[in-house]
Amino acid sequence: ELELKTTLRELVVYIVFLTDLSILTFGMVSTDMYYLNKVMSHLFLEPSSSEDDRSGFRSIGSRADFWRFAEGPLLDGLYWEKWYNNTTLTLQNNSHIYYENLLLGVAQIRQLKVRNNTCSIYPYFHHFLEDCYSEYRSRAEDRSDFGLRNESEWKYTSASSLSPWYWGSMGLYSSGGYMFTLPKSKQESVEKLMFLRQNSWLTRGTRVVFIDFSTYNANINLFCIIKLVVEFPATGGAVTSSHIYSVKLLRYVTYYDYFLASCEITFCLFIITFIIQEAIKIVKLKKEYFRSAWNWLDLLLLVSIFAIAFNIYCTVEVSLLMEELLSDAHVYPDFYFLAFWQVLYNNMIAVNIFFAWIKILKYVSFNKTMTQLSSTLSRCAKDIIGFAIMFFIIFFAYAQLGYLVFGSQVEEFSTFQNCIFTQFRIVLGDFNFETIEATNRILGPIYFITFVFFVFFVLLNMFLAIINDTYSEVKADFEVIPSQELQIRDLFRQVSKHFCNYLI
Amino acid sequence: ELELKTTLRELVVYIVFLTDLSILTFGMVSTDMYYLNKVMSHLFLEPSSSEDDRSGFRSIGSRADFWRFAEGPLLDGLYWEKWYNNTTLTLQNNSHIYYENLLLGVAQIRQLKVRNNTCSIYPYFHHFLEDCYSEYRSRAEDRSDFGLRNESEWKYTSASSLSPWYWGSMGLYSSGGYMFTLPKSKQESVEKLMFLRQNSWLTRGTRVVFIDFSTYNANINLFCIIKLVVEFPATGGAVTSSHIYSVKLLRYVTYYDYFLASCEITFCLFIITFIIQEAIKIVKLKKEYFRSAWNWLDLLLLVSIFAIAFNIYCTVEVSLLMEELLSDAHVYPDFYFLAFWQVLYNNMIAVNIFFAWIKILKYVSFNKTMTQLSSTLSRCAKDIIGFAIMFFIIFFAYAQLGYLVFGSQVEEFSTFQNCIFTQFRIVLGDFNFETIEATNRILGPIYFITFVFFVFFVLLNMFLAIINDTYSEVKADFEVIPSQELQIRDLFRQVSKHFCNYLI
Amino acid sequence: ELELKTTLRELVVYIVFLTDLSILTFGMVSTDMYYLNKVMSHLFLEPSSSEDDRSGFRSIGSRADFWRFAEGPLLDGLYWEKWYNNTTLTLQNNSHIYYENLLLGVAQIRQLKVRNNTCSIYPYFHHFLEDCYSEYRSRAEDRSDFGLRNESEWKYTSASSLSPWYWGSMGLYSSGGYMFTLPKSKQESVEKLMFLRQNSWLTRGTRVVFIDFSTYNANINLFCIIKLVVEFPATGGAVTSSHIYSVKLLRYVTYYDYFLASCEITFCLFIITFIIQEAIKIVKLKKEYFRSAWNWLDLLLLVSIFAIAFNIYCTVEVSLLMEELLSDAHVYPDFYFLAFWQVLYNNMIAVNIFFAWIKILKYVSFNKTMTQLSSTLSRCAKDIIGFAIMFFIIFFAYAQLGYLVFGSQVEEFSTFQNCIFTQFRIVLGDFNFETIEATNRILGPIYFITFVFFVFFVLLNMFLAIINDTYSEVKADFEVIPSQELQIRDLFRQVSKHFCNYLI
Amino acid sequence: ELELKTTLRELVVYIVFLTDLSILTFGMVSTDMYYLNKVMSHLFLEPSSSEDDRSGFRSIGSRADFWRFAEGPLLDGLYWEKWYNNTTLTLQNNSHIYYENLLLGVAQIRQLKVRNNTCSIYPYFHHFLEDCYSEYRSRAEDRSDFGLRNESEWKYTSASSLSPWYWGSMGLYSSGGYMFTLPKSKQESVEKLMFLRQNSWLTRGTRVVFIDFSTYNANINLFCIIKLVVEFPATGGAVTSSHIYSVKLLRYVTYYDYFLASCEITFCLFIITFIIQEAIKIVKLKKEYFRSAWNWLDLLLLVSIFAIAFNIYCTVEVSLLMEELLSDAHVYPDFYFLAFWQVLYNNMIAVNIFFAWIKILKYVSFNKTMTQLSSTLSRCAKDIIGFAIMFFIIFFAYAQLGYLVFGSQVEEFSTFQNCIFTQFRIVLGDFNFETIEATNRILGPIYFITFVFFVFFVLLNMFLAIINDTYSEVKADFEVIPSQELQIRDLFRQVSKHFCNYLI
Repeated sequence: ELELKTTLRELVVYIVFLTDLSILTFGMVSTDMYYLNKVMSHLFLEPSSSEDDRSGFRSIGSRADFWRFAEGPLLDGLYWEKWYNNTTLTLQNNSHIYYENLLLGVAQIRQLKVRNNTCSIYPYFHHFLEDCYSEYRSRAEDRSDFGLRNESEWKYTSASSLSPWYWGSMGLYSSGGYMFTLPKSKQESVEKLMFLRQNSWLTRGTRVVFIDFSTYNANINLFCIIKLVVEFPATGGAVTSSHIYSVKLLRYVTYYDYFLASCEITFCLFIITFIIQEAIKIVKLKKEYFRSAWNWLDLLLLVSIFAIAFNIYCTVEVSLLMEELLSDAHVYPDFYFLAFWQVLYNNMIAVNIFFAWIKILKYVSFNKTMTQLSSTLSRCAKDIIGFAIMFFIIFFAYAQLGYLVFGSQVEEFSTFQNCIFTQFRIVLGDFNFETIEATNRILGPIYFITFVFFVFFVLLNMFLAIINDTYSEVKADFEVIPSQELQIRDLFRQVSKHFCNYLI
Repeated sequence: ELELKTTLRELVVYIVFLTDLSILTFGMVSTDMYYLNKVMSHLFLEPSSSEDDRSGFRSIGSRADFWRFAEGPLLDGLYWEKWYNNTTLTLQNNSHIYYENLLLGVAQIRQLKVRNNTCSIYPYFHHFLEDCYSEYRSRAEDRSDFGLRNESEWKYTSASSLSPWYWGSMGLYSSGGYMFTLPKSKQESVEKLMFLRQNSWLTRGTRVVFIDFSTYNANINLFCIIKLVVEFPATGGAVTSSHIYSVKLLRYVTYYDYFLASCEITFCLFIITFIIQEAIKIVKLKKEYFRSAWNWLDLLLLVSIFAIAFNIYCTVEVSLLMEELLSDAHVYPDFYFLAFWQVLYNNMIAVNIFFAWIKILKYVSFNKTMTQLSSTLSRCAKDIIGFAIMFFIIFFAYAQLGYLVFGSQVEEFSTFQNCIFTQFRIVLGDFNFETIEATNRILGPIYFITFVFFVFFVLLNMFLAIINDTYSEVKADFEVIPSQELQIRDLFRQVSKHFCNYLI
Repeated sequence: ELELKTTLRELVVYIVFLTDLSILTFGMVSTDMYYLNKVMSHLFLEPSSSEDDRSGFRSIGSRADFWRFAEGPLLDGLYWEKWYNNTTLTLQNNSHIYYENLLLGVAQIRQLKVRNNTCSIYPYFHHFLEDCYSEYRSRAEDRSDFGLRNESEWKYTSASSLSPWYWGSMGLYSSGGYMFTLPKSKQESVEKLMFLRQNSWLTRGTRVVFIDFSTYNANINLFCIIKLVVEFPATGGAVTSSHIYSVKLLRYVTYYDYFLASCEITFCLFIITFIIQEAIKIVKLKKEYFRSAWNWLDLLLLVSIFAIAFNIYCTVEVSLLMEELLSDAHVYPDFYFLAFWQVLYNNMIAVNIFFAWIKILKYVSFNKTMTQLSSTLSRCAKDIIGFAIMFFIIFFAYAQLGYLVFGSQVEEFSTFQNCIFTQFRIVLGDFNFETIEATNRILGPIYFITFVFFVFFVLLNMFLAIINDTYSEVKADFEVIPSQELQIRDLFRQVSKHFCNYLI
Repeated sequence: ELELKTTLRELVVYIVFLTDLSILTFGMVSTDMYYLNKVMSHLFLEPSSSEDDRSGFRSIGSRADFWRFAEGPLLDGLYWEKWYNNTTLTLQNNSHIYYENLLLGVAQIRQLKVRNNTCSIYPYFHHFLEDCYSEYRSRAEDRSDFGLRNESEWKYTSASSLSPWYWGSMGLYSSGGYMFTLPKSKQESVEKLMFLRQNSWLTRGTRVVFIDFSTYNANINLFCIIKLVVEFPATGGAVTSSHIYSVKLLRYVTYYDYFLASCEITFCLFIITFIIQEAIKIVKLKKEYFRSAWNWLDLLLLVSIFAIAFNIYCTVEVSLLMEELLSDAHVYPDFYFLAFWQVLYNNMIAVNIFFAWIKILKYVSFNKTMTQLSSTLSRCAKDIIGFAIMFFIIFFAYAQLGYLVFGSQVEEFSTFQNCIFTQFRIVLGDFNFETIEATNRILGPIYFITFVFFVFFVLLNMFLAIINDTYSEVKADFEVIPSQELQIRDLFRQVSKHFCNYLI
């Protein structure tokens, strides 16, 4: 009776907590963010077909293409000075992208270089080659002045230690570099870029160029922080990537926002209560506490404290940045920093709520069928894990084979992680067999067919055999045990009685 | 014996009913409808390659693109005034699209706007921004005159309460708005559109533009009702969608149509009989009646009454609209209204016949194998549902994780529903892993691999284990029970005897 | 002992027969055929990018596009009069496509029309519409002279009763029509086509146009028969399809061909022996004979007699056609007729050999494991079929739902058959969910998710449950029966002994 | 106790060996190789959009297209003489592709021809056709001088017997031919190619053209060897293929390379020890030795000896080639030869390490769950193989059906191997049903549906039934046997004790 009551109370509290958390998280993401991302990427990443195809951001393949993009589509996208019927748009000399998104301050362009002779040339080639620029590594970075040496774009500026490094396809780039901001008008920007191009601002040692800017859309109260990255690997050519983050940095504007704020406060209260509860539990149970997986899940919820702290920090930081921007419109405001942490915070919350949902399974086991099923899963867990180890030894053996044979030719196999992902996709049926076959006409098909036969036909079925067998056993066991359905009915009766009492 | 006879009679009657219903529904849809849709969407939605790519409807990305489409491909598609060898086509000043489809009346263009200052600008930005147009909501709608204020396109016209609201990607749009019709000739239309463009008919507050027109193809007696929608979200940019409905509004033209009409009458008779039967059953069984799932299926069939009522209404309404059109060719005839209901009616019938087919399973259980299989399915239903609940808790936890992490970047995760659909597609193997990985290089692969492992490798197999185990049990049970094959033989003998008697 | 010997002899004979048949069929198809098809379809079907995209065959969307294709890419492809360095190619006024494929005679263009007023116009529209051309049906065909009425292109020519009708997307077209051949030179052809275009050879009643020609490649001894079809449906617009058959009509040229000929003779002998054997069996066993599925398979082999007959007929017919062509180069030689039958013959042989392979399963059951497996399959066949009926009732209910709801919008659901194929593809994971969702935002996802859940998650697993259960039973049964491995060892000993005796 | 110790020692030694091998192989492949391949294929294989689409390598469809490619994109790609801001790049008259990749020597172009009248023309066509060039076979090769007969491009040069033949889509090409090298400057190259085009260097008998060149990137110490192949089949048209190998021919440059070298030496020592061990085992066990599959795996490792030998040979050969190149920059250095063997060597090592990983399964069987699972797999192996035979008879019967019916039209069925691969892909869900249906509207869907039903629904489930049943049996058996978990605990205790002793 007593036990039932506590279980009941726990369940009700947990559902309230979960509802609060769900409202909070759904308040964080809105479809507007997706649409804002989409229109921005349409504008900056896709080629405008009126000109030739090479000018799109994604088709940048060399240093020449970079300048073509920067002087063309980039500036066209950044400076919207006219309304569609040719009347002028500009108010107070600001650019409104798509007429709705205010460009905050100006855009910043930044490059990182490596020093000459950072790699050794084999004696044979000393005759032909004099310079050698290695891939980007922190040690090989060039920080000396170059070119005209007179302005910030020719001088190395080191960054504050807090700003996040950028993890590109080719390496981890530091946050300093040779940087400059574009002027406020389109015409001046074109001239500045042309000047830099003619004075060879991009050198053979240049390994990466970043283009950063931010916009604010007042209609939907969203910042859009855009980072376009062009890496120039040591192989020649160029690899592009882009990051467009739509974030809600000004949190409390509409009435709905205030409702969310109240949810956040509720959430804080819950977290405090949880901390106290868990602390009591730990003290009581000591080592025993850490044996239960459910308790580990509880501990996981405690990371939410960081989320709360970040929330407060973010609000402060935005106001500081905005004030700086208000005083001087020609400065580049570094919102990327905030957006990066905001996204990290969102991900943290997302993982949190995922485990919060999983925890519900702890409470659903009052029903016989449910218990039967969950005990099947927990009983076969050991066998499943045992088999998973065998499965993944073979899986990784195939992954390494794929990496060594196809790695230098096929994108899906170009790194070891990609091989693993690709093999999961083969199992699901999403696969490009032609490229494999074109790369190696003998090993390609052998790899594919043996993989499908052993992994898809044979090994995958072992999982099923294990589960099937365990289920039969569990079901046989349960038929002996008397049903606990009675208890659940009692529980519901209790709930209704409680509820009535509460109302009276 | 007696029971057998009634079962027999029921089965025969049911098969007749199902045949009648099938003929009816197959008469409703024809491949011509698909081809008509296809050629129309080819004409209006795909870019005509002779001009530049931006002019296609689907590539509209800003207000400027809209005018480019409206003045170019739209008018080219609407006004076919010449035969391919340059001889003139026009008879009585009408446009024949593809030489075969008569444009009914004229096209109508309609926009909806929102008021300025319908959202609050954060204090920081008062310096930079003055106007703020929120997303479209009924409350924020702008209904005041604007621009030249002299004609219908500058004045708000409210719509009749019956016409359906439009459910777009961004919201639910009312059916009123600032509307105008295009003139009968192409040259005048171009001038009208240019005039509107230069006078800024599309404002910053414009949130959606509808282009509506209808055609009639006498060769195959089909109306084609076309609605092109361009939404201008508060984020900037534009989102397009289109609805092309080919419907047969004039039902009784050919001999085949009259045959269908007779089927419809038969159907009505069946429905009346069913109503009486079910009424009797309900009176007899009272509460018991609603316990059987089959009886619920029977009740579902009764929604067909609405279908019959709609049929009559539709025939009347079309004749009224046609008469209005005959008296004045410069009017826009609102067939969209009818097409919308016709499509709803078709869907209702489609769901109806789906359940009618499922009901056949009630009658097939005369055979031992069949009984064995259907009792397997019904016996494991409880376990399946129990497990489905557990399955979907985990499934939804993943969906929410996906929504929060990828929602603002990847289209497949941009809404919570989309996340659910996407996860079903992952299970089937139809998935775009690259975009997930590009969005989040850490959580993307973790999400994907754990989802595949837990859901595809482990949980999905539980369904199988449940079914497998139940089947073994049922089969063991049936081996004890004496075969009922005898009865089915008797039944068939009865059928043949009956049939002979009937013939004599 | 005796039984073993006969089994042995039968098996050896059957393997010889199967080897002979395999050589024969692999001799029929060569990779050259595929490459010939590919280069031809590249030339005629894909747009030549130097001109604008509309000119490709597959992008024909109206009567104007047809003329643009015919006067452009078609004639460019047909008449190769120059070598790539501008020296002239033509020998004896013949065109060599890709310098290697001789154009046989000339190309023929043929159209079919329907009469005016072949459908009834609803009274409302008598005011707007005067003409009405129904879809193509044999009854509605127009066979009267039209236009200039002076030459074959303006006069109806009926076809010989033997030539096959053409089964297009819109109907079954007769083989007569208004036809003309292109002149031998490119310049004259252009003029002829322009003349026809200006005199409106294509009318509103035109429903289909066929372009036919054949080439011969002496390097690989293959004919290539090409038929390009443009259908003009009653909805307006155009639908294209193409048939390119590479066939080896001259069979006996190289030494390898003579080897194949000897195989063919061996095959004839086998067939004759089989016929006699089966005839004896039938006489002996009478009705009993038709009870065994293996015997039905044997009977199926007898259709090969038609193949032999066709072979002889084809050789005669080709020589007749070639002689006609030799006497007059300006005639169109109708190889399509032969290619059509050749392809039919190939398909017949293909199905034949498929069943011949399946028959091998009859002989592999000498091994215990094999017997166990094949008896599992045969024992669960009844249950599988029983369940397949239930499965397909639900499957077809879904197919009909899909057809009625999505049929008029989505190509994959545009006919009832397509719905069935599409649903199989959903099960395998090859599916385009977006189009379904765009068509119907409510029913689309419901259809998809319930289909996946019931069919993929639940019903599909029933097959497995049935097989699994039967296998357990069969295995349990076999453990009781003593092994027959002994016999198979004996058999192999016998084989080796026999073989030794044979050698001595 | 003693047994345990040896097992322990073996395991530790094996893990060290595997780690060494893994470091070695991961050192062989780097992501740079993939990026180098990618930028090179971007430059030479994809069309440069500024010009018209036909000029890309992959769209070559005739002899004229070949010259257009060779004179355009090929030379643009080969000769980078200017920096992006138009300052000149060239140092010492060398071309630096992408400013980073030194073109080694010059490019070589080579063709192979067949003789006229290498096939027989059927009597009917003697009137129309005089020449007949068969497909490329060694016997039909033309080795006589042609054209101007004065320089190497008009004279046949035979190749050294060691250089590998090229296995193209159409045949196996010898390594001799009519070859020439391009001059060092772009202008001269254009003139040379134009001269050859106007003098018809490509004849009707030309069957294949090879373009070969190599680059070296000092930044990452990689050679890139490129071979572009255009085959002109006897059917007309052209088929292109390309091979881009990024290989590290100069192995020992950086410190990391020296670390890898030490790994290589360790590997050699291991291999020597293994050889001795296995030799002893063979002597001891004699015939018994070859009965165990694990011993066969051990023997497989011995192929590594070839790898070591190749390694030494390669280092010598590169230095010889480099010296030749240093003495004369106008020569074509044949690195293709080395790259080909390097890739073969990589593949050999890859297969080796795959089996080395699989061998680990031998050692994991100390745990009860593991033993249970691996004994399940080994016990059902016989049944799986038995069933696989039955499965593949039906599978091949379908493959042959597909080949005969669709082989001449659909690329996925164009060879018998492709049919097999395609059918595996159907099972996984990666399939293009439309092309099958377009090829044969009757047999296409029948083939597809019966294949999916029998193979995917029925046969595939048999694998599962076999595994499932065996697993139940094995599990039942193991419940009787006492656990061996004790031993594994002992083992770990031993390990720790040993380790402690070692440290002291």
